[in-house]
Amino acid sequence: MKALVYHAPGKKAWEEKPKPTIKKPTDAVVKIFKTTICGTDLHIMKGDLPAVTDGRIIGHEGVGIIEEVGSAVSNFKKGDHVLISCITSCGKCEYCKRGMYSHCEDGGWILGNLIDGTQAEYVLIPYADNSLYPIPAGADEEALVMLSDILPTGFECGVLNGQVKPGDTIAIIGAGPVGLAALLTSQFYTPAEIIMIDMDDNRLAVAKKFGATHIVNSSEGKAVEKVMKLTNNKGVDVAIEAVGVEATFELCSEIVGAGGHIANIGVHGKSVILHMETLWSKNITITTRLVDTVTTPMLFKTVQSKKIEPKNLITHHFKLNQVAEAYEIFGNAAKEKALKVILTNE
Amino acid sequence: MKALVYHAPGKKAWEEKPKPTIKKPTDAVVKIFKTTICGTDLHIMKGDLPAVTDGRIIGHEGVGIIEEVGSAVSNFKKGDHVLISCITSCGKCEYCKRGMYSHCEDGGWILGNLIDGTQAEYVLIPYADNSLYPIPAGADEEALVMLSDILPTGFECGVLNGQVKPGDTIAIIGAGPVGLAALLTSQFYTPAEIIMIDMDDNRLAVAKKFGATHIVNSSEGKAVEKVMKLTNNKGVDVAIEAVGVEATFELCSEIVGAGGHIANIGVHGKSVILHMETLWSKNITITTRLVDTVTTPMLFKTVQSKKIEPKNLITHHFKLNQVAEAYEIFGNAAKEKALKVILTNE
Amino acid sequence: MKALVYHAPGKKAWEEKPKPTIKKPTDAVVKIFKTTICGTDLHIMKGDLPAVTDGRIIGHEGVGIIEEVGSAVSNFKKGDHVLISCITSCGKCEYCKRGMYSHCEDGGWILGNLIDGTQAEYVLIPYADNSLYPIPAGADEEALVMLSDILPTGFECGVLNGQVKPGDTIAIIGAGPVGLAALLTSQFYTPAEIIMIDMDDNRLAVAKKFGATHIVNSSEGKAVEKVMKLTNNKGVDVAIEAVGVEATFELCSEIVGAGGHIANIGVHGKSVILHMETLWSKNITITTRLVDTVTTPMLFKTVQSKKIEPKNLITHHFKLNQVAEAYEIFGNAAKEKALKVILTNE
Amino acid sequence: MKALVYHAPGKKAWEEKPKPTIKKPTDAVVKIFKTTICGTDLHIMKGDLPAVTDGRIIGHEGVGIIEEVGSAVSNFKKGDHVLISCITSCGKCEYCKRGMYSHCEDGGWILGNLIDGTQAEYVLIPYADNSLYPIPAGADEEALVMLSDILPTGFECGVLNGQVKPGDTIAIIGAGPVGLAALLTSQFYTPAEIIMIDMDDNRLAVAKKFGATHIVNSSEGKAVEKVMKLTNNKGVDVAIEAVGVEATFELCSEIVGAGGHIANIGVHGKSVILHMETLWSKNITITTRLVDTVTTPMLFKTVQSKKIEPKNLITHHFKLNQVAEAYEIFGNAAKEKALKVILTNE
Repeated sequence: MKALVYHAPGKKAWEEKPKPTIKKPTDAVVKIFKTTICGTDLHIMKGDLPAVTDGRIIGHEGVGIIEEVGSAVSNFKKGDHVLISCITSCGKCEYCKRGMYSHCEDGGWILGNLIDGTQAEYVLIPYADNSLYPIPAGADEEALVMLSDILPTGFECGVLNGQVKPGDTIAIIGAGPVGLAALLTSQFYTPAEIIMIDMDDNRLAVAKKFGATHIVNSSEGKAVEKVMKLTNNKGVDVAIEAVGVEATFELCSEIVGAGGHIANIGVHGKSVILHMETLWSKNITITTRLVDTVTTPMLFKTVQSKKIEPKNLITHHFKLNQVAEAYEIFGNAAKEKALKVILTNE
Repeated sequence: MKALVYHAPGKKAWEEKPKPTIKKPTDAVVKIFKTTICGTDLHIMKGDLPAVTDGRIIGHEGVGIIEEVGSAVSNFKKGDHVLISCITSCGKCEYCKRGMYSHCEDGGWILGNLIDGTQAEYVLIPYADNSLYPIPAGADEEALVMLSDILPTGFECGVLNGQVKPGDTIAIIGAGPVGLAALLTSQFYTPAEIIMIDMDDNRLAVAKKFGATHIVNSSEGKAVEKVMKLTNNKGVDVAIEAVGVEATFELCSEIVGAGGHIANIGVHGKSVILHMETLWSKNITITTRLVDTVTTPMLFKTVQSKKIEPKNLITHHFKLNQVAEAYEIFGNAAKEKALKVILTNE
Repeated sequence: MKALVYHAPGKKAWEEKPKPTIKKPTDAVVKIFKTTICGTDLHIMKGDLPAVTDGRIIGHEGVGIIEEVGSAVSNFKKGDHVLISCITSCGKCEYCKRGMYSHCEDGGWILGNLIDGTQAEYVLIPYADNSLYPIPAGADEEALVMLSDILPTGFECGVLNGQVKPGDTIAIIGAGPVGLAALLTSQFYTPAEIIMIDMDDNRLAVAKKFGATHIVNSSEGKAVEKVMKLTNNKGVDVAIEAVGVEATFELCSEIVGAGGHIANIGVHGKSVILHMETLWSKNITITTRLVDTVTTPMLFKTVQSKKIEPKNLITHHFKLNQVAEAYEIFGNAAKEKALKVILTNE
Repeated sequence: MKALVYHAPGKKAWEEKPKPTIKKPTDAVVKIFKTTICGTDLHIMKGDLPAVTDGRIIGHEGVGIIEEVGSAVSNFKKGDHVLISCITSCGKCEYCKRGMYSHCEDGGWILGNLIDGTQAEYVLIPYADNSLYPIPAGADEEALVMLSDILPTGFECGVLNGQVKPGDTIAIIGAGPVGLAALLTSQFYTPAEIIMIDMDDNRLAVAKKFGATHIVNSSEGKAVEKVMKLTNNKGVDVAIEAVGVEATFELCSEIVGAGGHIANIGVHGKSVILHMETLWSKNITITTRLVDTVTTPMLFKTVQSKKIEPKNLITHHFKLNQVAEAYEIFGNAAKEKALKVILTNE
């Protein structure tokens, strides 16, 4: 089969690899139908994730069709259409039982990281019963690719951890795909005001279309001032960090109101300053989380009932074998006005 | 009347002041029976809290007897024995209704800070119905002084915010009075292991008597190593910070396990480093809080039913007019093996 | 002033009564601007509530203008526009501190019940700071009358107690004003399916317009069958009872799925049968509640930000002195297609 | 092998049966070391559970040693000592993912019910990785038999569902083994008062030893009166029903205070009367639950750290082949002062 293989920083290739086969009774082999590229994949390609080694097939999102299942797989059979979760869950370790699939003792985020991933014609999925979800006939499979990672990430790490409530005033820092996923899913809880903060006017315009009630371009350094004005100097109930750098984290801590929440989604490469000299008495809660995808069934229902249109996050389409081109576009997201790209295995 | 008055950094005096009188219909005047000194009072005396100005009567803890009440006070009448909360709550602002009395728009921590306090023969208590608690006949009033501040602080900021659960492994950093209050009240939730960390062997010995299952002296810099060994490298479920400096906060972030909680109690004067490069994916929760004293009724019941013996926190006794001497002892707590001192207005 | 006075079962009059005056420092006198009639008022008029005695002014909903305040009232002053809560809260008893204003030791539902109410030109509101809410300039005051009782009732007793979640399938039994309030506010949490059940096709048609995804006319006795078909025999996640009779309560227990919630709103005059022989192992939760109006501030924000349009519940308008006529219409709600009527004191 | 086999109401035999063998890759065969008898087993023997058919081996509790595992079992290997959960969990269906193992689509309570059980020399355990728990070397295995069913049942259905909090006043109706398990585990949350209600003075005496602060013999019909006196007419915060008949359920509804919880544990054969005419406005919560055993890991930690001594529930010991005799004793529990009996496979 063909697959996108990482070799070294800056060096990847669409090349021939052996088609995966069942190794454990809990495995499944899935023929990829549609997949996509994640911001994390760009980091991998730059060599930022040393755990990813030469020869690894990249990608952790997608939908496909069951090709073969191991003897212990009972939820799926050959021919079933499935959604692939970016998180592999054994369903039986301490962490899986606590709903923390991201810390699964034999899984977690391994796909396209520690084991071969989805930017390929076929992929092996361990613990298939717990790591795949059935797609009902008639569903919009392309839209469901957004449920592999981006929607549960925005929802679990941002919205659920931030405890967004009806009537709240919330701010989301970062209007990239994950920030927009938080924007879309935050509306499940009907906040009164959603302030979207970014440095790119195009992305802010998208945010406005997706339901932001206020947009703030932070490139002039006046974001704190603007948010404080919008909130009568009370600060926001929830600040969602969807960037992953010190400046945006600090912004969250400056705009969060007493009793509020800072929900971190961003992947941080460095430590940040935490202003405990002001925060210690402010009754705030800061959360971190790697997506667990425990809410995938809940999100599935909201998509099926049209409460959310994940398709709106998709801006570009390619054939799977055009994956190099797709990386080019996605790697220049701001310029290309790209959010999520879809790669179809035709 | 006589009272302990702050004049300037390092300058305080036990001197004559006018006895307070009712100013608003919601006020009460309380004759102090017993009061105590808080670590915060030491900071005030050093001049660390600029909001405290020359002439202020210090102190925010105590029990006493109602001397006079305003026309709108209905829960209390002259002669009633009362517990004074360190937090004044109007009971009618947004924050009070949310249970965040510490952020009350016309109260919060004002006693012995922005208004005159309890290290005096009499004290004026605003919003008396919401800021005082009735003491039933026969109660041990001296023990109840611990409910003014220290027990709710350890319980709300440390134990409740840390979400201590049966079977948990928890660590408390700092075995001073507030850390010990967290130790005592954490046992309401039956953690399996309580690791107490401090640099003072005497305080650790007290902690052992108060229910710590393990004690770790951190002065040799091996606290992380020791805690990791005790927890099979999983880290603790809850790390309670009861010191308020960068090193102890960082210690918490190094020993907290995936899915765990860091509950800050300590008063921080400076910012700290937050290692988001490791924490971002660890599913942890960090909380800050100024005590709200919303749990005072709950704590009252646990004291009345002998589930906790706050009296054990008291090490020294003085007459109220010996307050200068009491400050001397409490200011050298480690050397004097002092936890809480009781000042009695005889 | 003029007021609607209850004298005896079936006997009421619009007659002259003394204008109320401040009695306690926490009181306020409010000039009524707009009020409405509640289903409970109809029960009072029939004599179903023996606590309501001859001479009582009826009504517990409305908006108005502050006429006079007691010396301890600080949130309001003469001329302020206010929303009147149906529940009086002292803000300082055990129950108020627990957020259970409905069980306030000196309040609860007393307005138009144990003390004179709002179907009058003026009304005395005890504990004004805790029982009134400020109306900002420019707000639609008529719409806000729905926040006195009906919206918090549907929201707190039905939606919050039922723990409606995104993606849930819920059923609401009873499409009267309170059931419709539950329907409107349930959408704050984005359930996937909302099944509205009633015996009146007109009300069901209204429900459909208000967001019900399915409607079921239960008059043919096939409601259970229909709901089970809609839910693939799993039953609903939440069943909200908004009628108050045995048949509808039993219907809830037959359609609730394993792990589900039955949230009772209805006022019951008789006991019901609880099928513990099937429910004991079904992991269900049944809740009862008299509205506490603790969520009024939250609801206020959702109305101000146009997340909900309570005005849609209003079907008829009268002058306050036409109150007898209004009772006539409201008492024949089904025939008159009446939901809520507004009485304006011009 | 030998096993206790149900044949018909009143007819059981200790007889030869084929030793079980692995059928699915997720199965394990366990050699029983110690087992016990449950009240439910007595009902089975009387013929009360028609799902149990002729030839079924009874029993759903026990500890043992792994004899053989299927190819997909990874948590256990031959020779491992294991605790058997009364609930079989596949770990991958909707209900298991929601923590409702009792409603597992391919499991739940099937052991000694729909499949052969533990009152035998060997037992087949489906979904072994999710339905067994490892026993560390040196643990008191006999005590751990109490964790198969009785402790999680009292804890989950009674204590957790009842939301017992520090300082609460709780009542437990029924001082049989499950009621006593609720009594023991309720103390994890430090209630101020625990009122134990039963008709048997011996069991009440045991309850007193196990930590009840008050005991009430209800045989004279004055239980409501006595509880109301003990609670200053406020009623209890939590009423735990551990009997399963109408009278005890009704007792719960009469003694529960406003805002309180009724947590049902008892297995009910008939419907009960629910007094909605008084409860509708009382803000109470009623829960039902079949034990899920999701808290087994938590309970394990509390046993290992000596926070609870489940051994105290054991009153009688037999060899496994004396099982008929054991049934005789356990079937006359009141007279024999029996709580739990241990059957050892020597």
